[in-house]
Amino acid sequence: MKIAVFAGGVGGGRFVTALRDATSNDGHEISVIANIGDDMWLSGLKICPDLDSIMYALAGVVDTSRGWGRRNETNRIAGELDAYEVGWPWFTLHDLDLATHIARTGMLHAGSTLSSATRQLASRWPIGVTLIPASDQSVETWVRLTDPNEPEYVHFEEWWVRLRGGGSPVSFHQKGVHFSNPSAGALRAISDAELIILAPSNPVVSIGTMLGFGGTKCSLSGIPGLRNAVRAAPAPVVGVSPIIQGAPVRGMADVCLNVVGTPVRSSEVAKTYGARSEGGLLDGWLVDTGDAQDLDRLSGVSGRAVPLLMSNRETAEALASEAVEFGLTLADR
Amino acid sequence: MKIAVFAGGVGGGRFVTALRDATSNDGHEISVIANIGDDMWLSGLKICPDLDSIMYALAGVVDTSRGWGRRNETNRIAGELDAYEVGWPWFTLHDLDLATHIARTGMLHAGSTLSSATRQLASRWPIGVTLIPASDQSVETWVRLTDPNEPEYVHFEEWWVRLRGGGSPVSFHQKGVHFSNPSAGALRAISDAELIILAPSNPVVSIGTMLGFGGTKCSLSGIPGLRNAVRAAPAPVVGVSPIIQGAPVRGMADVCLNVVGTPVRSSEVAKTYGARSEGGLLDGWLVDTGDAQDLDRLSGVSGRAVPLLMSNRETAEALASEAVEFGLTLADR
Repeated sequence: MKIAVFAGGVGGGRFVTALRDATSNDGHEISVIANIGDDMWLSGLKICPDLDSIMYALAGVVDTSRGWGRRNETNRIAGELDAYEVGWPWFTLHDLDLATHIARTGMLHAGSTLSSATRQLASRWPIGVTLIPASDQSVETWVRLTDPNEPEYVHFEEWWVRLRGGGSPVSFHQKGVHFSNPSAGALRAISDAELIILAPSNPVVSIGTMLGFGGTKCSLSGIPGLRNAVRAAPAPVVGVSPIIQGAPVRGMADVCLNVVGTPVRSSEVAKTYGARSEGGLLDGWLVDTGDAQDLDRLSGVSGRAVPLLMSNRETAEALASEAVEFGLTLADR
Repeated sequence: MKIAVFAGGVGGGRFVTALRDATSNDGHEISVIANIGDDMWLSGLKICPDLDSIMYALAGVVDTSRGWGRRNETNRIAGELDAYEVGWPWFTLHDLDLATHIARTGMLHAGSTLSSATRQLASRWPIGVTLIPASDQSVETWVRLTDPNEPEYVHFEEWWVRLRGGGSPVSFHQKGVHFSNPSAGALRAISDAELIILAPSNPVVSIGTMLGFGGTKCSLSGIPGLRNAVRAAPAPVVGVSPIIQGAPVRGMADVCLNVVGTPVRSSEVAKTYGARSEGGLLDGWLVDTGDAQDLDRLSGVSGRAVPLLMSNRETAEALASEAVEFGLTLADR
């Protein structure tokens, strides 16, 4: 079966790794469409945090304690950059990780698309899935702040890492979104898929930056054409809730939901994604067993409650298997 | 006294360090105008081998056994680039050195000139001289080869490092030279100088790429305006021969001289630089004591024979002192 998964970085990496491992005997072909909203150019280097987090997770070289970056890292270069008084004290470029940025930047300068560079980087490892950036264009997420002591606009990574979601954010903006298209690989993965899964990634700044997210206070349009491609796809679409009993699985989904004006509740995230039958994205929605009562609040979306917390390899693989199994029941209808 | 020195990388770094140390009690202000012909963009990073060799030498952090690069280097990133099957097996980007390239590239992307980036990088260390690129524009030296198994044109560094001067070279080309200007800092250092020294660097691909070198088989025009600025300067110009008894002090000056058609002999290099009184660059020329008989062959240039081999710190400082002292005798005329 061909499965397409929309994913952000840390949680997405964990989920798709579990999906690959849980279904390794089933002959599924998994395509992972990764968020590019966190991408940035730093010191002439193209940095793609989500693509890299996913690649490292799948390659088994991720630093599992952090959930991102490489294991056994060193900071020889960061120390030098500090000594030169350049760089970003809030964003450490670790040595092994830097090599990925340098290699990718070289490929881009040589004329490769981000899709092609991603494929070439991933070919180093047998990651076992096809990893695809949502777009080959640059669509950076910026955050508007109202804290008078901060810049009015900061890149998402600066907001996330330096400000940890603070600075009184009021809106997200997708820089360059109007000039962007879905990557050819993403469109192919979507139209070929027999099952489409939205990983339990941040619904606003990971999934929403790809597929749009219409909050009451601010909306992300997503990459033009990508949402419609999903809506037009023959495969059922299963979303995995990133919210467990009113709190994000990981990261700061709650902060992001507050900015756009969506209550931090599993059913509210589903409502904002929207039922496919009502112009939205979802055919099915997986919530945590603790949120089973939320299933009553879904309109036009099939629901199922399963343990969502990916606390270890077994629970992550069980969740991934549930998502696939649930999707199959929807496909049979 | 204000001294301006034209210098290439390894030999230049050694010479200017000796000059600084030998005259540290004399209150001289030394400006080093560095060759930029070896510069290149690799994987999106701006690499300036000569500027860096000189900076590291002056900062006391150069790997003295190699003569270039940083001491205590590691190759974490190069190993990763190999694993990604990118990079240049013939050109290892060492970790600490890479930080310099990344920092500089960041500054250039932020709008700095190469002069400004060089100043900012050098400010990390008390290098004790003003280090200035000959131009803020990119003027890369390329080599035309006639070996049918090699590309017709290769970057100087590829020719130097991978081919070690081979590939049947027939000519040098300065890519971008017609669009280049001397840096403002270089022009200021030249016009302010009370003494100008041409370091015992490669006369063709280090000094010649800055000031021109007219061989019988091929000519380098140098950076437009730089040669005339030196000719118009009030200060005497002393050249230090890079050839000792028919062999280069270091590097492959002999190979480069063969390409342009200049005999590998101290007096022939001086003749190609030219006597200032006859439209050339030199007022004075320092040759090795073993080449004293060559002094008779100089026309319009004052000569002096001193030990040229910079085999250790003492001999290097003695040579630098001789160059200054010789220059003072010329200034008194």
